[in-house]
Formats: sequence, structure tokens, C-alpha cells
Amino acid sequence: MTLIVVTGMPGSGSSTVIKGALILNEKGAEFTLLNYGDVMFEVARDAGLVEKRDGMRKLPNEKQQEIQRLAGDKIVEWKKSTNLIIDTHCTIKTPSGYLPGLPDYVLREIKPDQFVLIEANPDEILARRQTDKTRERDVEDEKGIEEHQFMNRAISMAYACLTGAPVKIIQNHDGEVEKAAKEFFELMKVLPKA
Amino acid sequence: MTLIVVTGMPGSGSSTVIKGALILNEKGAEFTLLNYGDVMFEVARDAGLVEKRDGMRKLPNEKQQEIQRLAGDKIVEWKKSTNLIIDTHCTIKTPSGYLPGLPDYVLREIKPDQFVLIEANPDEILARRQTDKTRERDVEDEKGIEEHQFMNRAISMAYACLTGAPVKIIQNHDGEVEKAAKEFFELMKVLPKA
Amino acid sequence: MTLIVVTGMPGSGSSTVIKGALILNEKGAEFTLLNYGDVMFEVARDAGLVEKRDGMRKLPNEKQQEIQRLAGDKIVEWKKSTNLIIDTHCTIKTPSGYLPGLPDYVLREIKPDQFVLIEANPDEILARRQTDKTRERDVEDEKGIEEHQFMNRAISMAYACLTGAPVKIIQNHDGEVEKAAKEFFELMKVLPKA
Repeated sequence: MTLIVVTGMPGSGSSTVIKGALILNEKGAEFTLLNYGDVMFEVARDAGLVEKRDGMRKLPNEKQQEIQRLAGDKIVEWKKSTNLIIDTHCTIKTPSGYLPGLPDYVLREIKPDQFVLIEANPDEILARRQTDKTRERDVEDEKGIEEHQFMNRAISMAYACLTGAPVKIIQNHDGEVEKAAKEFFELMKVLPKA
Repeated sequence: MTLIVVTGMPGSGSSTVIKGALILNEKGAEFTLLNYGDVMFEVARDAGLVEKRDGMRKLPNEKQQEIQRLAGDKIVEWKKSTNLIIDTHCTIKTPSGYLPGLPDYVLREIKPDQFVLIEANPDEILARRQTDKTRERDVEDEKGIEEHQFMNRAISMAYACLTGAPVKIIQNHDGEVEKAAKEFFELMKVLPKA
Repeated sequence: MTLIVVTGMPGSGSSTVIKGALILNEKGAEFTLLNYGDVMFEVARDAGLVEKRDGMRKLPNEKQQEIQRLAGDKIVEWKKSTNLIIDTHCTIKTPSGYLPGLPDYVLREIKPDQFVLIEANPDEILARRQTDKTRERDVEDEKGIEEHQFMNRAISMAYACLTGAPVKIIQNHDGEVEKAAKEFFELMKVLPKA
């Protein structure tokens, strides 16, 4: 089955773009949407490591890596029966720096067919974060967002190299979410599906 | 034997730089020049998958990856008896995004000793493409070329990390092709050769 | 035990930042500081390949890679009994281009838990190099330093992907070395230690 990994930093609007594409795809091939962070949280909660989702980022890196791996196992199970879209992050900004969202040992397990980076301009991302009260956000200014986006692009090419899968960049500028959703939908149509 | 991988996006003039260096090298160690795309095309044509070279980029990624791998096998055969220069792309811009030219499974097979990126300024590349009517070109503007060049540099460092081989950037600015060819020739002289 | 890899290009002041952090850490967990270049030099000198440290960069890449690997073996030995900080380079600028400081085969051996990039502005790095007479420096201008820093960031994300370890960027601007040292010290406190 086909596995598309969609990444976007907080404020990029990646989840909204995916949902828009799935609506356009209503009559197309079946895709199941999973949020990597949700899967990780379920794994961590079941193991008694955290109570709230935001507690995840306070876990030591070693624990986060173990949970990443266990979440990967779950995704491999899902992939056996359905096409998947995984909503996740290229890197997670932690007090220890940029933590890779999809390290080698996870990539080799889940074997993505396609990577998608949802991006926006740093000022757009910053403004969206300031109005987003639903989750705790790390403090990051425009220069920090630019640096973060650089690191995301760089690591996406390591992901591409290790898997052979292509990386598509989709811009989700203010007021253009439908255009971004359509672009992602067109990509879904091109991919081979079971 | 020594294997040098030279990459450049369409309009970078990488093929011209290589040819210039080979003329300077006339009395030097023997090098055979192979174009990865040509080898891939031969493989694909022999398998009845395409008729024309430009049809390659319209194949599904899965097929392109299979052909990449088979072309890698051919290169390993050549490498047994001669020093090689492979003319190829860091990434290929496809409708699915940036497809890695040398994914992990190809790199581990062909084991390059040296990577070379031939670059030019985005405006130079754009102008060269507009006068180049010999092959179909995807539409890409200056900003797109800049992004493509970024992704090429990023993935070249993944290639370096996986192989241990260094990455040399050579600028091929307008009117300076001889300088670029000489720079590449100097690099060829430094490399250990069988 | 914990292994922190700290990288900085010549003039970034990485060694000074590390020393400052170790002073702050005086009463903390034990860390042994190793310079990868020193370990490589010892290995190379013992093998009769070089006499002076600066002779290292004139060795063919193949020899440098062999020495990298042997130095990795030594580090693995150290790591069995102490927490380590390795002072090294993301990439080394050689006549053959950007040579990876930590290729895949070294990373898999030493298994770092944390990467740190010590950076400064290109003009700061250039000025520091001009007053540093203790070692031979390759000629590199501001644009070259910017390019080098780009390649270092890019390869650091390949390192992160292959190991699962995070990458922390610490700015060491003029007159702010104590701030940089404190930032690194805070990072040392967060890491799990044996």
C-alpha cells in the first residue's frame, strides 16, 4: 500500500491542507489519515509515561526515540490494509535542538513512498501561531522559523536519499489553502495505489 | 578504480565542463564518461518501458527507481575495468517533487569516491535553458532554480555522509567554462587512480 | 555513557565554548574532552603517516578515511568508561571539497547522543581567523564561510537522521562566549548521563 508522509511545522497549516485534499479525494482511492504525534501519544500513554499530549516534548530524547520506534511498528500494521497519510514533523524543536521526526530506524521500517513539506512564509507562520491557543507553542521568532525551515528542508533530503522517495514542497500561503489542498490532491492522484 | 560523480541541473553546463576537463586530461589517466540518464534510458528501452528519452520522466517513481538500480548494476560492471566519470543529477524535479538521483541503495552499490556539483547563478541557468531547444525542459523560474539548487546541495551532503566521499562545488559562470573545466581537471589529478 | 559531538569551523570558537561549559560543570557529572583531530593525528603519527598535525589535510582522502575509522575505534573504547565530549568538524574543507567529518561508518560506530553546532557570523569568523596565527588556515572569504556553514548545517541533519540524535545550534557571537558556554552547559545538564 502507499504511504505519504506530510510534514509541516506548527503554524504551517499542514493538517488543514491534508483535510482539504481528502475532501477533494472523497470519491478517489481510500486513504487513512494518521497523526504521528497522536500515535506516539497513545503508545506513551499506554506505557504510563505521560498523561497529556504536551508532556511528550518534556520526555528525555531516549524515551522519545523509543516511542517513535513503537509508533512506527503501529504504522507498519496499518499499512498492511490501507493507503496511509501520516501527518508529522520533519524535525521537532526541543531544548536539545532539532530532533529528527523520522530517523533512519523509523524510515527503514515504515518505508514512505512520498514526502510532502507544507511551508509558508515565516511571518505567516508566526501570525498563525499567535492566534492559535489550542496547544502550547515554543517561543520562536521569524529568524528562528527560517532556521527551522532550513533544517527541515535539509533533513527531508536525507529522508529522500535513504528511501528513494521524492520530496514535494507545497506552499500554503495566507488565503491560498484551497490551492495548496488541490496541489496535494493532484499528487495523491499521481501516486500508485493498492 | 576511481568513480567521480558529477551533478548539475539542466542549464548548469555540467556536461560541457566535463568535456573540457577531459580534453585537458588527454594525456592523463584513462577515464570513461557515462551519462546516468543514458544508461537508465538504455535499460528502460531494452525493457520496453519507453521509446524516447524524455518519456523517462513520465514513468511512475517506482519504475524510475527500478531503472536507477539496474543502471547502477551496469556502472558497477564498467567500474571493474576503468576509471569512471558519471554525469548525472543530484535530484530530478518531477511532478512528485525532488526525486533523489542517487538514493542509498544506488550509492552503496556504486561507491563513489568524489562528488562534484556544477553550479551557476539562477539567472544564468534560466537564460541558458531558454536558448536550449534540444530537450524538453520543465518550467522553472529563478526562485524555483534557487530552491532546486538548495535541495541539491542538501542531498549532496547526505550522499557525502553515506559514502565518506567529499563534495566539491564548481561554479560555471557565463564566459568562465574554461576556468570551471580547469578546476575539475585539477581535481581529477589529485584523486587516486588505478 | 553519553557522547556529545561538538562541531565548529575554524574561527567559530567551539573549543573555547566547550572549555567555558566544562568550568561551569566543575561539580557536575564527569565528562572527558577529546579532540577528534588530535585522536586522528595520534593514530596517523603512530602509523608513520605524518609528522606534524597540519600534514593531515594533505593526505589523500582514502588515508584520511582510514584514520577517521581508527580514531572512531579509540573513541568507542573511551566511551565504555566515561561521558565524552568530542570536539570536531561537521565537514573539513579540502582541495577535493567538503569532506564529511562523521561519515556513516563512523557514526554507526561511535553512536552520538547529541550534536552541537557552534556558529558565528561569517565576518566574525573571518576576523578571528586573521588574528589566529597558531595554525595554518585555508584561504576562505565571507562568501566561502557562508557556503561552508550551509554545508555543515545540511550534513548535520544527515547525521541526525542516521543516529536519531538532535542537533543544537549555539551562536558564539563576539563578546558573548560566556552566554554560549552557559547554553552548552544547560544542554549538558539535560542529557542523561551514566
